[in-house]
Amino acid sequence: MPFTLIDLQNVIRDTYGDKDRRRGIEGTFMWFMEEVGELSAALRGGTKAELAAEFADVLAWLATLANGAGVDLEAALLEKYGHGCPGCHKSPCTCAAAEKP
Amino acid sequence: MPFTLIDLQNVIRDTYGDKDRRRGIEGTFMWFMEEVGELSAALRGGTKAELAAEFADVLAWLATLANGAGVDLEAALLEKYGHGCPGCHKSPCTCAAAEKP
Repeated sequence: MPFTLIDLQNVIRDTYGDKDRRRGIEGTFMWFMEEVGELSAALRGGTKAELAAEFADVLAWLATLANGAGVDLEAALLEKYGHGCPGCHKSPCTCAAAEKP
Repeated sequence: MPFTLIDLQNVIRDTYGDKDRRRGIEGTFMWFMEEVGELSAALRGGTKAELAAEFADVLAWLATLANGAGVDLEAALLEKYGHGCPGCHKSPCTCAAAEKP
């Protein structure tokens, strides 16, 4: 069963839309950062299940921010990363190490 | 044309896999955070195109981290957010404001 970024943005809107609108972008960004911190901790020493859950939480709060900002995440990805490296337009990337190490 | 998280993780692996392995998780996390900072700036006053590009960059570096950690982002999302709010299992969420404001 697929669960795309479009699904995620819809699920987050249906499940949390009212709360998200009341909280606003600034408050939502603080919650997003809290989850980023938890992801950092999991990357240092979490189990595989903890890691997966923290990645999901970061994505969920990123989807909340995107909903608030009116951005379609899947379209944004296709635009920037759908045609090779955005810097050199090659795959694998051939950008100099100073630019993209 | 869809561009799913599975597509993203594959594109990132094909395009940057060698560089990503050499840089490691710690260095990649610093690049991820730089993009998070740029997203914060765009949310405060960016154009719609700048916002979309910064969301894409945050997602791309998150995919790099997930590749390094061996996490399938789409599966992680389905597991945690595929069945309503992870707290109350309802949609819309009915968690108390103290827990999920």
